[in-house]
Amino acid sequence: MTIEQVDFGPYGDYEADCPARLAVDLFSNSWLMVIVYTLRDGPMRPGDLRLAIGQISQKMLTQTLRRRESMALVERRRYAEAPPRVEYSLTAAGRDLLVPIFALGAWADEHGDTVRAAMFGES
Amino acid sequence: MTIEQVDFGPYGDYEADCPARLAVDLFSNSWLMVIVYTLRDGPMRPGDLRLAIGQISQKMLTQTLRRRESMALVERRRYAEAPPRVEYSLTAAGRDLLVPIFALGAWADEHGDTVRAAMFGES
Repeated sequence: MTIEQVDFGPYGDYEADCPARLAVDLFSNSWLMVIVYTLRDGPMRPGDLRLAIGQISQKMLTQTLRRRESMALVERRRYAEAPPRVEYSLTAAGRDLLVPIFALGAWADEHGDTVRAAMFGES
Repeated sequence: MTIEQVDFGPYGDYEADCPARLAVDLFSNSWLMVIVYTLRDGPMRPGDLRLAIGQISQKMLTQTLRRRESMALVERRRYAEAPPRVEYSLTAAGRDLLVPIFALGAWADEHGDTVRAAMFGES
């Protein structure tokens, strides 16, 4: 996708009610974005989710899943089995968020080396 | 753009060398993203940039523009006029970052109300 194919929409400047601002705020909670990314292929049980992410503590995972803001992106389902089974999956809003997340990934594939060199210096 | 139209690429899980991680790290510097967004239509002088953003202090704007990581997204040009004129504009990496930024904006247009309701509660 190139810039020309993007409908930039009727966005104004960066104001309190600007939708881009909500998006940027969401992205500054990195773990929430990582959880959305990790759930991309379907529902996961909490233990598998933690294994797939790899570097997150149990406490941070639980906190992030329980924060109210996560609830609109990720949903928890509890199955009345013995023992009871819990699964997390993406809501419609969470699933649609994969579009900008993967657009960011494609951007990082293209420009990551340039940006890393500027951040950390060329040796 | 729908999920089906996105080439998800060969991304693995969220590891240290995952390009998505760099992107998420960048987005957690919100002001840098706001500056990129504000420069979308072309070069701007520092004073106009600050006016357009509206809520940023002179100190924060200068700090964000001077941090090494901003240099790969935004470039500074100094014209030898009297008085000297300085302009900031997007690099190729900065301009391409508008694609995921506007994908996020479109997502927020679609799902912003749902997410805000979950974050702040319905009254």
